[in-house]
Amino acid sequence: MIIDCHGHYTTEPKDLHRFRKDQTAAANAKDKAAMPPPSGLKMSDDEIRESIEANQLKFQKERGTDLTIFSPRASGMGHHIGDESVSREWTEICNDLIHRVVMLYPKNFIGVCQLPQSPGVPPKNAIAELERCVKLGFVGCNLNPDPSGGYFNAPPMTDKWYYPFYEKMVELDVPAMIHVSGSCNPGLHATGAFYIAADTIAFMQLIEGNLFSDFPTLRFVIPHGGGAVPYHWGRYRGLADMLKRPTLDGHVMNNVWFDTCVYHQPGIDLLAEVIDTKNILFGSEMVGAVRGVDPQTGHFFDDTKRYIDALPISEDQRDAIFEGNARRVYPRLDAQLKARGL
Amino acid sequence: MIIDCHGHYTTEPKDLHRFRKDQTAAANAKDKAAMPPPSGLKMSDDEIRESIEANQLKFQKERGTDLTIFSPRASGMGHHIGDESVSREWTEICNDLIHRVVMLYPKNFIGVCQLPQSPGVPPKNAIAELERCVKLGFVGCNLNPDPSGGYFNAPPMTDKWYYPFYEKMVELDVPAMIHVSGSCNPGLHATGAFYIAADTIAFMQLIEGNLFSDFPTLRFVIPHGGGAVPYHWGRYRGLADMLKRPTLDGHVMNNVWFDTCVYHQPGIDLLAEVIDTKNILFGSEMVGAVRGVDPQTGHFFDDTKRYIDALPISEDQRDAIFEGNARRVYPRLDAQLKARGL
Repeated sequence: MIIDCHGHYTTEPKDLHRFRKDQTAAANAKDKAAMPPPSGLKMSDDEIRESIEANQLKFQKERGTDLTIFSPRASGMGHHIGDESVSREWTEICNDLIHRVVMLYPKNFIGVCQLPQSPGVPPKNAIAELERCVKLGFVGCNLNPDPSGGYFNAPPMTDKWYYPFYEKMVELDVPAMIHVSGSCNPGLHATGAFYIAADTIAFMQLIEGNLFSDFPTLRFVIPHGGGAVPYHWGRYRGLADMLKRPTLDGHVMNNVWFDTCVYHQPGIDLLAEVIDTKNILFGSEMVGAVRGVDPQTGHFFDDTKRYIDALPISEDQRDAIFEGNARRVYPRLDAQLKARGL
Repeated sequence: MIIDCHGHYTTEPKDLHRFRKDQTAAANAKDKAAMPPPSGLKMSDDEIRESIEANQLKFQKERGTDLTIFSPRASGMGHHIGDESVSREWTEICNDLIHRVVMLYPKNFIGVCQLPQSPGVPPKNAIAELERCVKLGFVGCNLNPDPSGGYFNAPPMTDKWYYPFYEKMVELDVPAMIHVSGSCNPGLHATGAFYIAADTIAFMQLIEGNLFSDFPTLRFVIPHGGGAVPYHWGRYRGLADMLKRPTLDGHVMNNVWFDTCVYHQPGIDLLAEVIDTKNILFGSEMVGAVRGVDPQTGHFFDDTKRYIDALPISEDQRDAIFEGNARRVYPRLDAQLKARGL
């Protein structure tokens, strides 16, 4: 079985975009009367089916993957837009939409939720939505380390600000993918700059802190191949040493996984060379950041399964990357699969 | 000849730190009367010799490199401290100190200057200091894309805000290393997060913009192996395509070089595999970000010459990385070497 840990619903029904546009305009104008009612959203099951079957499901079949851990469009979370109530309403709508996709295609998708974060609002305020989604069958969440949209002014992820939320993650036994959203910073392109920078920054915060002593079972997935981290693995090993932190294996790497959203063979080769197999989760970000065909290979940049297939590793290692590791990181996914005899 | 394009004076005489501490305190207190006079600085030639001979010069000899393109401590530039006048005074002191090192060891060091940048202050205000330094024999500058110290609130590097400064760089025929300084953001470790994030962000700005159409001979060095860029080369090629930009070779890579400050063999292997030899400059950041010995190799993390020596490339390629490319990127260096018959 091949589990893709990183898929977003980036082909949403048209009316969702109409709603968000209206909601954003009302939020920016601080005009509560202009807020569009969620009840006015028109998204039929047929529309959802069409959008999924022509895209994510088609790619699953073509590329030979089985199950996608599926969450709302990451750049669409837009935690910097409006206030906490705007973020909460939007988040519930987006998560409910993921739930509908999962109900329509339970063999192919399983949910991960976005959170109703907002700049300056404590993460503990996202606990209720996490609990609601887990009750619906979601198996993890996307936690945004910079709800400002590109100004990096939130406390580091090791700050006690996050602790009540982490306690709930541990209690529910769900991991978080550390994932920023769209950028409102003219200097930061979302998928080309903000995402990769935020991934890298988060890892360094984990080196500097001591978070996993306080939460030994807390689990984070750092997407996009861990940002710059594997490429600079020597720097991070050296910095841990200079900062008199323990070595990375025990200090961070019992609790952190990198996905394989790295869109060329040499990058995946490096990832597999320097990072232990046990810390790598297959992911493609499909349909996502980079949608074209690589002229050097004739294949989609984000068809990352091909890169894993080409790695000179044992079949046990490949199985761990494709399935085994994901089942360990997402125990609620594992439980659902086992309940289906898988 | 082996030219290290990336060295900082990180072993400065003690009194420089005393001065900066006093200057920072006065700036923070907005107390002009408490500003320490630069004339009070006590840094003898002997002290400078001692600090260089026990460190950078010793490492040059041990590692077999010849000439370091040398600039003030990057994390010490501290453009976010005080106002423009504080930044200017501090910058002149730091650059003058580099000049003294170069005068003491002209065979071993050649200067690159820091700039008197300050948040919100147009880069054109740094032109005079660049001109002053070039007259002293400096061959390039370090340009900080985020003088705020970690909040990424400056215009992108492709913005016209920078253009008068770029015009001067072109006129003087000097390149800039794109290099942020210390972080005042509690979430951003300077050398582990801020540097690598800023490198990556700058490259994406260059993809999005069209800077090198306006300045075909403008040259940037992106340090720390180009941040995350080579590891995510497929992503950047794919994003250029998605954003309908030209391919990276003509659009960016006639004007951008990556150094080899990547502190493990697999990272350097990747760099050399995906980036054309013509775009790679040997650099070590010595003595800098990571000062320890890698327990996996028994050698210093930042002894990057060893990694280049181990690359399966031709001797012509190795010569280009060690010397030829640097002479093309820094024509004023080349001219000085030629004047010495080198």
